[in-house]
Amino acid sequence: MTTQQRRILVIGIGAGDPDHLTLGAVKAMGRADVFFIVGKGDDKSALTDLRHRMLDEHARAPHRVVEVDDPGRDRRPMGRSDYTSAVRDWRTRRADIFERLLREEMTADETGAFLVWGDPSLYDSTLGILADIEARGSVSPSIEVIPGISSVSTLAARHRVPLNQVGRPVHITPARRLSDVAQNDDGDIVVMLDAHESFTRVEGDDVWIYWGAYLGTPDELLVAGPLREVSGRIRRLRAEARDRHGWIMDTYLLRSQERNGPRP
Amino acid sequence: MTTQQRRILVIGIGAGDPDHLTLGAVKAMGRADVFFIVGKGDDKSALTDLRHRMLDEHARAPHRVVEVDDPGRDRRPMGRSDYTSAVRDWRTRRADIFERLLREEMTADETGAFLVWGDPSLYDSTLGILADIEARGSVSPSIEVIPGISSVSTLAARHRVPLNQVGRPVHITPARRLSDVAQNDDGDIVVMLDAHESFTRVEGDDVWIYWGAYLGTPDELLVAGPLREVSGRIRRLRAEARDRHGWIMDTYLLRSQERNGPRP
Ligand SMILES: C[S@@+](CC[C@H](N)C(=O)[O-])C[C@H]1O[C@@H](n2cnc3c(N)ncnc32)[C@H](O)[C@@H]1O
Ligand SMILES: C[S@@+](CC[C@H](N)C(=O)[O-])C[C@H]1O[C@@H](n2cnc3c(N)ncnc32)[C@H](O)[C@@H]1O
Repeated sequence: MTTQQRRILVIGIGAGDPDHLTLGAVKAMGRADVFFIVGKGDDKSALTDLRHRMLDEHARAPHRVVEVDDPGRDRRPMGRSDYTSAVRDWRTRRADIFERLLREEMTADETGAFLVWGDPSLYDSTLGILADIEARGSVSPSIEVIPGISSVSTLAARHRVPLNQVGRPVHITPARRLSDVAQNDDGDIVVMLDAHESFTRVEGDDVWIYWGAYLGTPDELLVAGPLREVSGRIRRLRAEARDRHGWIMDTYLLRSQERNGPRP
Repeated sequence: MTTQQRRILVIGIGAGDPDHLTLGAVKAMGRADVFFIVGKGDDKSALTDLRHRMLDEHARAPHRVVEVDDPGRDRRPMGRSDYTSAVRDWRTRRADIFERLLREEMTADETGAFLVWGDPSLYDSTLGILADIEARGSVSPSIEVIPGISSVSTLAARHRVPLNQVGRPVHITPARRLSDVAQNDDGDIVVMLDAHESFTRVEGDDVWIYWGAYLGTPDELLVAGPLREVSGRIRRLRAEARDRHGWIMDTYLLRSQERNGPRP
């Protein structure tokens, strides 16, 4: 089996607002022959729709679109080692799919593109999977990454706040790891991938939350205030929205007002 | 003194690459009557030049540009309480300047805009200063923030790596705080605002660095590798580049290869 060269664009498309596309992303869409769209299942088709609308507007004619289903991960609650092997397993299946896309759905003369939600650098597996298939040796992708506006930047912009307090760090974490993070410093914390309303378990009278769901879309929801006071409202909004849409994507910044003053 | 209403756009313009402007930023530039450019002194005029080139291309005719000098901060090495008061002092002087710009250089019928380097949400004082002058009570700005591609997203894109390892947190910190951050978790660390090559004091055989300077510009420099092996090369490149340009802007990701495997 010979190693096949492939030109691949990994294009960040922003997290919901079509105006968050960069000029570079628009140009990159115009350069690709084939677009790979990895679907998340029916309930999140809004995410796929946005990609199609962007291609209608910015891709060149003719171009091809290949849609595949994400193999899906086992999402039952589980311990750390089961979680690790569930993630490994899922990555292997995704790599199989990507390898097939690159080998069979495009040629060495063409340019392929993945449209990545938000910024490819934050909690997205596309770059990791491309590295995995490169290590397998059957395809050698030459990759260009076009950064995108993440949901984190969008959250801060909509609330008109910086992510960091002056001179302090900021931490970005999956909700599963919230309790490990920032135990020993005064940085603020951005939480992503929260399936279990982890903010309800955060202590401290001085903690403010800046919360946003469906950021950048017409369904956007924003709540900001002292966590103790607004936590109930966020839970109600979340439950209602989830019923209405069948799914929810939200993220939030936790800021501690105490430990105050610009710290070096 | 009456409170004056002002419409203000805070526009993230990316950290050096004009293609990192978003469609929303281009539209916003087209809506503003007056642009405020806060200069950093002669040696960094490249940063101001980029803003002017963007306005030539995207602002509507006619528009006004008001340039002011950043009052500058006392940057001598100092202890924590002196640092705190130096930062306070500098913020007061910047607030005086912003207040004057908003009151005297535009009217209530106009739209003013600040062009912010990178993303306004990361280590940028514009939003903080606008909040300060609102608290003073003489101007009431109604603010819209347009997020931008940060130097952090650009760093990751250029190196074609995610910022986080699977399931782990990521920390963003000013170099001054590097030693406080992530002592107790397995997250990777992005360092900004490093005037003293703090990476030379980082321990660990397993640490990789992804370093970038002048990201997104024609002068871009990139180095990636095991910190122990590439540290000397980064120091040489930094010193040469600084001599050549008179200034340097760099940022880097520190990734620990140990503590491995996708951790929940
Ligand atoms: C798999 S991660 C992908 C993040 C993406 N690469 C980015 O840059 O935003 C998905 C998580 O991002 C956050 N997210 C993505 N889009 C969002 C949106 N429009 N509104 C709120 N949160 C969003 C949620 O926390 C969600 O669980
Ligand atoms: C005051 S902060 C502003 C950050 C900006 N708001 C952003 O989103 O990138 C300045 C720091 O950002 C980083 N930085 C900004 N532009 C950069 C570039 N083009 N290349 C490398 N680092 C950059 C450097 O660490 C620099 O010390």
